[in-house]
Amino acid sequence: MSDRVTRKGNSQPQKEEPKQAKKQKVQKESYDLVQLQDIAHQLRIHSIEMTIASNSGHPTSCASMAEILAVLFFTKAGMHYNPKDPGNFGNDRFVLSKGHAAPILYAAWSMVGYIEGKELLNLRKIDSLLEGHPVPKLPFVDVATGSLGQGLSVAGGMAYSSKFLDKINNRYWVLMGDGEIAEGSVWEAAHLASHYKLDNLTAIVDVNRLGQSEETSIGHDITVYKKRWEAFGWKTIVVDGHNLNLLTDAFEQCRNVKNQPQVIIAKTFKGKYLEMENKEDWHGKPVPQAQVEFVKKQMKQQGGFTLTPEVPTQIEKPQQSHFTLEINYPVDGKQSTREAYGKALVGLSKTDANQQIVAVDGDTKNSTFSIKYKEAVPTNFVECFIAEQNMVGWAQGFSCRGKVAFASTFAAFFARAFDQIRMGGISESQVKYVGSHAGVSIGEDGPSQMGLEDIALFRTIPNCVVLYPSDGVSAERAIELVANHKSPCYVRMSRPSLPILYPNNEVFEIGKSKILRHHDDDKILLIGGGVTTHEIFKAAKQLSEQDKINVTVLDLFSVKPIDHDGILNAANKTALKTILVVEDHYSEGGLFEAVSSSLSLNNEVKIHSIHVDKVAKSGTPAQMLSLYHLDAAGIVARVKSIIQ
Amino acid sequence: MSDRVTRKGNSQPQKEEPKQAKKQKVQKESYDLVQLQDIAHQLRIHSIEMTIASNSGHPTSCASMAEILAVLFFTKAGMHYNPKDPGNFGNDRFVLSKGHAAPILYAAWSMVGYIEGKELLNLRKIDSLLEGHPVPKLPFVDVATGSLGQGLSVAGGMAYSSKFLDKINNRYWVLMGDGEIAEGSVWEAAHLASHYKLDNLTAIVDVNRLGQSEETSIGHDITVYKKRWEAFGWKTIVVDGHNLNLLTDAFEQCRNVKNQPQVIIAKTFKGKYLEMENKEDWHGKPVPQAQVEFVKKQMKQQGGFTLTPEVPTQIEKPQQSHFTLEINYPVDGKQSTREAYGKALVGLSKTDANQQIVAVDGDTKNSTFSIKYKEAVPTNFVECFIAEQNMVGWAQGFSCRGKVAFASTFAAFFARAFDQIRMGGISESQVKYVGSHAGVSIGEDGPSQMGLEDIALFRTIPNCVVLYPSDGVSAERAIELVANHKSPCYVRMSRPSLPILYPNNEVFEIGKSKILRHHDDDKILLIGGGVTTHEIFKAAKQLSEQDKINVTVLDLFSVKPIDHDGILNAANKTALKTILVVEDHYSEGGLFEAVSSSLSLNNEVKIHSIHVDKVAKSGTPAQMLSLYHLDAAGIVARVKSIIQ
Repeated sequence: MSDRVTRKGNSQPQKEEPKQAKKQKVQKESYDLVQLQDIAHQLRIHSIEMTIASNSGHPTSCASMAEILAVLFFTKAGMHYNPKDPGNFGNDRFVLSKGHAAPILYAAWSMVGYIEGKELLNLRKIDSLLEGHPVPKLPFVDVATGSLGQGLSVAGGMAYSSKFLDKINNRYWVLMGDGEIAEGSVWEAAHLASHYKLDNLTAIVDVNRLGQSEETSIGHDITVYKKRWEAFGWKTIVVDGHNLNLLTDAFEQCRNVKNQPQVIIAKTFKGKYLEMENKEDWHGKPVPQAQVEFVKKQMKQQGGFTLTPEVPTQIEKPQQSHFTLEINYPVDGKQSTREAYGKALVGLSKTDANQQIVAVDGDTKNSTFSIKYKEAVPTNFVECFIAEQNMVGWAQGFSCRGKVAFASTFAAFFARAFDQIRMGGISESQVKYVGSHAGVSIGEDGPSQMGLEDIALFRTIPNCVVLYPSDGVSAERAIELVANHKSPCYVRMSRPSLPILYPNNEVFEIGKSKILRHHDDDKILLIGGGVTTHEIFKAAKQLSEQDKINVTVLDLFSVKPIDHDGILNAANKTALKTILVVEDHYSEGGLFEAVSSSLSLNNEVKIHSIHVDKVAKSGTPAQMLSLYHLDAAGIVARVKSIIQ
Repeated sequence: MSDRVTRKGNSQPQKEEPKQAKKQKVQKESYDLVQLQDIAHQLRIHSIEMTIASNSGHPTSCASMAEILAVLFFTKAGMHYNPKDPGNFGNDRFVLSKGHAAPILYAAWSMVGYIEGKELLNLRKIDSLLEGHPVPKLPFVDVATGSLGQGLSVAGGMAYSSKFLDKINNRYWVLMGDGEIAEGSVWEAAHLASHYKLDNLTAIVDVNRLGQSEETSIGHDITVYKKRWEAFGWKTIVVDGHNLNLLTDAFEQCRNVKNQPQVIIAKTFKGKYLEMENKEDWHGKPVPQAQVEFVKKQMKQQGGFTLTPEVPTQIEKPQQSHFTLEINYPVDGKQSTREAYGKALVGLSKTDANQQIVAVDGDTKNSTFSIKYKEAVPTNFVECFIAEQNMVGWAQGFSCRGKVAFASTFAAFFARAFDQIRMGGISESQVKYVGSHAGVSIGEDGPSQMGLEDIALFRTIPNCVVLYPSDGVSAERAIELVANHKSPCYVRMSRPSLPILYPNNEVFEIGKSKILRHHDDDKILLIGGGVTTHEIFKAAKQLSEQDKINVTVLDLFSVKPIDHDGILNAANKTALKTILVVEDHYSEGGLFEAVSSSLSLNNEVKIHSIHVDKVAKSGTPAQMLSLYHLDAAGIVARVKSIIQ
């Protein structure tokens, strides 16, 4: 590649100059390339000093991308943003997908002015926001990164939001490492971005050749990257990632591409301009202090940078609405909770004046019933096809842009995206996950389609609300509750059609359960959720009518936070101070463990459990419930054996 | 595409015939294409009848692949296998990645003779092995499929095993749907297969255009698929997927490719040869009985098929060895449990005469220390780069081929592959997962790198053993135990160097904990694991020395199965009948919930907990332990508050 310089007095005439380039050329010549190169070196020096101060971190991974950040942050070809206001909703946004390069990210924003210079040396310290990998406690960070291969998905959702929903002209820039390109989630994201023609999205791949433990599988074979991105529908530009001129050109080209996302494949060297440039065994290690001097010697001037970004229009981030829902089920009606999800979204849309609710699905919309929302508000439904990781990333992207994002698929298939959900937890993102087809009660399709660990998974997410409705009314109220709740939320939906249990005006709360049946002489407390609420209810009637045994029936509804007081009070009122939890879920991390850990300091109440206790199989829903003793007959038998 | 026929007397001379083709031509002319087409139609009829009998299932998804299966199962260009013995280790193997097409898989094996014909109508019935999606209870199925996009990874591991480890000439054939190509895991698998030049691996994409809820994002734009697979390094053949001749040619071509995996992009039509051919809204629905007659009318002869596969050499599946380990730590030594993992694998290799242990890693081998095994037994270590889903799939593939497969990465990053781990549980595969860098004790890297939900995840897998060693000795013994155990297993390893707690000859058992300290006057029982075992031990000494308070110290070691009797006995011996569980993990699904659910029927013991109770952050390991009160000081304070 040529090493053109376009400083004043040093520029050379170019052949075959594209038509559009003239106007840009004027801009470009005004760049002070010496300043820009010095900025890149200054970013290196900060990265070295920061990681020495923290005695950990990845300075060589920062060094390979210093020129990229210099152009991206400090030229008009790069990001357009207000250097005084990271909160401007009209700013371009940058996602550092290779989160371990956090030091140079902080250094760049410090040079812009978002971070005080002296704070940089507090990298990775307990009282600093400058964590080892970026988190959105920082106003210039949208999502936590550090689990590789996730940044492009989130940026995809944000870019879709700007282009099609908010109709804002800002752009999204994602920097990825070359090692992380092996993550399949990157190709899910690449595919959907080109499918939806997101021309406001630019990816930059920092191909520095070296992974953590050896050379990447592709090394510096740049043509492989080029072919793959082109095949996935991206405008692909290959560039020497340390050549400021070519980088500037590439960014300018990206700005002019229509109806296609763009990727800049930047050939770089790990540890560039350090003595350990392009050497193995320097991943994730601070380098000696002498490297600061080594880089300084390569600088032409010291500080005094005057470059500024292009400043876009100031736009306020929209406030989230409060949503309410009218529902109307006949007393003797039946409804699957999954279908109630679709109905609830449509109902909520009636109070969504600013169309803030966005729903995504992974080609299961006719099973999860999110299709109802697509039919009602087609602009705000986004089909993400069979790629759950990217679907969750896009939902987080929508959430970053102030949308109320709902993501639905089979409960089982959220397992596919669990690392994205985990990272969303660290981001404290507010996505509402809705899993249909929970448990063995789906029947014939068999275990691969049965969510039997979904509650366990979502309960591990800090601050995640987990609701488990058992009829149409509670399902719609659950969706209304989470739409208005500012945290990640999971609602577990079931496949079978179930009788309506509650009046339409029943009030549900996060953290509260419901007592469906009780008498003064109840022997024990039965706790269920979803389909098992109906089975314990049937069992209770049967026990009362046939055996004169009364039991309390509690519909858990809120699995996390759990209704500790409600459960304990109900249990304490029973003659045997005994609970039987019945759940269409594995024992581990499910309703039983939620209840038993909640009561772990109580030494009066005994807790029994019926749950799915082995790998499930195919059969009718009724047979499946029977096989695991989750049906009324199994519950009746168990209650009798407990009472004897 | 041409519609050549090569039946005797009907074959036409071809121009530009490749050199190799002559010998094959003789074979090909012996195929009876009328029979083959009738077989395809018979497969359709079975699929229709089976799904009518079960009143559920996916006949139209079967119909698009009937010709592919006819050629694959009933010609010498297709699979080579013993039609009398599905257990022949030398057979080619077929993986149906689009598992919802199970009926046609069962129909094909029934026509071979592996399944009695009358059994087919028991599809999806509770007492049949013919589940809604295939499971390896059936001898011709290696892995459970039904969560899309996973088959190619497992086949990749199997193909690597045959080519490089067992040196068997069999081949692996994977059939995928077009919708599932959107799953990133497919591209992880595609990348690694071409990286390792797996020429014994053929993928077939059944591009029938229609997904579950709408047209796939690529539809019938076959060139997009072609470009993508070529860019990922595969020999790519585009074919009319209903043309038996072209399919046969394509399979033959694949058999002759060297050093490159091959993919056949088959353009097909959903519901082909049915009245609902190429129509939407027929996914996952039985079709009317009349379709049987509709297909029958298109058959030229009825039954009496004489086609047979090529039968390969008979090979016995190797028996798994029993492994033992010599270990030798100095009494006052220190060791991180993650490093003990690498040492243990090297130690085990000394009794691994048949080199059955295979270790995979995702570019973290210098952190997980699986690098030690790579250095000791380089043939049996496979670098899978940063693509954890595929890494887990490959490990399952190795397990399918009788290997003892270990998969290692950071504990946090198993979340990325959790759907594969879930499906491995349904397969009852025996992979040993080893997660390093558990908990906040990793320190500065921050929450994205901290496994804080890994125990909860693995505990949900039925029959999965979960071990949590706390020093070098118990870590190496844990690896020895799981190497010999026939189930999925997870071992949780920590980053910090920790003092040796146990003598080298200490005997550990799955399901047993260890009491490290006790006295007759112990007030309460402290339970820890990994780093917190050391902290509760320090706290116990301090409480005893400074406050004359004695406590029992229990190292949990086996989280699942849990040592119910050992814990209850120890708790019952304490004066306060009280337990304090201290864990470097979230509360949900972790040690505390394992203990409290285990004791849920005991109404004498109280259980307290110290755990990570919010999103973590960066800081030194000691600061992190202190922040969450997981260190000795926090534990001492908590014990005192409990006792007061």
